[in-house]
Amino acid sequence: MKSKQKAAPTESILYLCSPVNALVEGIYEENVLLSEVLKHGDFGLGTFDDLDGEMVILDGRVYQISSDGHVAKVDTNTHTPFATVTFYAPVRREEIDLEMPYESFLAWLNKLFISPNLFYAIRIEGEFKHIKARSVPKQANYHPFVDVTHEQTVFEFNNLEGTLAGFFTPAFLSSLSVPGLHLHFISADLRHGGHVLECIPRKARVGIQLIHKLELSLPMTSDYLNLEFHRNTDQDLNEAEK
Amino acid sequence: MKSKQKAAPTESILYLCSPVNALVEGIYEENVLLSEVLKHGDFGLGTFDDLDGEMVILDGRVYQISSDGHVAKVDTNTHTPFATVTFYAPVRREEIDLEMPYESFLAWLNKLFISPNLFYAIRIEGEFKHIKARSVPKQANYHPFVDVTHEQTVFEFNNLEGTLAGFFTPAFLSSLSVPGLHLHFISADLRHGGHVLECIPRKARVGIQLIHKLELSLPMTSDYLNLEFHRNTDQDLNEAEK
Repeated sequence: MKSKQKAAPTESILYLCSPVNALVEGIYEENVLLSEVLKHGDFGLGTFDDLDGEMVILDGRVYQISSDGHVAKVDTNTHTPFATVTFYAPVRREEIDLEMPYESFLAWLNKLFISPNLFYAIRIEGEFKHIKARSVPKQANYHPFVDVTHEQTVFEFNNLEGTLAGFFTPAFLSSLSVPGLHLHFISADLRHGGHVLECIPRKARVGIQLIHKLELSLPMTSDYLNLEFHRNTDQDLNEAEK
Repeated sequence: MKSKQKAAPTESILYLCSPVNALVEGIYEENVLLSEVLKHGDFGLGTFDDLDGEMVILDGRVYQISSDGHVAKVDTNTHTPFATVTFYAPVRREEIDLEMPYESFLAWLNKLFISPNLFYAIRIEGEFKHIKARSVPKQANYHPFVDVTHEQTVFEFNNLEGTLAGFFTPAFLSSLSVPGLHLHFISADLRHGGHVLECIPRKARVGIQLIHKLELSLPMTSDYLNLEFHRNTDQDLNEAEK
């Protein structure tokens, strides 16, 4: 098989194609190609230029969940203003075999992390009693992210199979990536998904990958270079992502 | 010539061997080998395990300025808890040919940066009318950095030749590296130096390197993994570094 992708590195690295605080300020066009992002990982999440929906990356395939609920596999020549990826290689595997309310699930997951000062990639595949997810509508630049999320579409799914994909980020890196747990969902039939607001897993396989290296690319767009940061990133992300 | 060092990458990357907020909290032993740091750059600054003085890296050589004013070239098997490096390759060169008071020098330098949202490496070689620099005394862990700097030794040098080496870091990355301008000094005769508090250049060559990629390594020491962050990093660094 011919492939132009770089081989996965031997050590785990988290790659950010831009800092999340630019997205928080309303910079939704950074024009980073997905083909570039995929050089740095085959697993992750993000959004698309013009904030056009939620992104899930699984096994090198990129899915877009639009705010109308439509899910599409997208081309690698698509652009993104924010994506987080790694080459998925879990070091710890667990099973969930009983229904866990959301708060219990979060507490259980947090106990799997050896320290809150590192990154973790998290992949959870199986059956869910309930998923509450959202997607965001396409935007023009300069509309602060927290305001856009007031226009989000919220989806509620019951009794379905699928995958949660995402990351844990240390609190002190909130200018770079969503702090704490950040998960996106895509159903096994690839028909539903979004940014996870709540979930109740019932029976699932859990993989956790510890990551202690970060690669960050700062955008070179005129919007980014001239950006004056005004928003309180922590506060806005806490309101927008939960 | 045989060398085990990696070749310099074709694009500029800033490498941080740990986040500065761990240092701010008083974690002074991260045991990162200088030989590891030098794989990521030949130019930079930092400190040493136990906060044992100020570090300057020029052309791949590492110098230690102790709090008693002694300057030594150090071995690559020395350890550091915090160092910032890049492979120095300036994209812009300027000359200073008249004496500039410190505030004017800062204003002049800031105008060379195309955006405050990127990193820059800065190297300034020449004659200085005045340099005010400090070094920090060796410490046990857990003594907050800002308190240690109350015990710093301040050096004042007049009419000497030497090199300023350092970086500009965007304000929103203050948990990772000292925000704004951060310069260390070493004299041409390698006998004096320190973390720069003030300087008055008279005649100097200035090189500026724009950097828009960051590589960060998070420590895996027990101290770091178990660290609860309490300090206000911005506030402490503003007090400790100026």
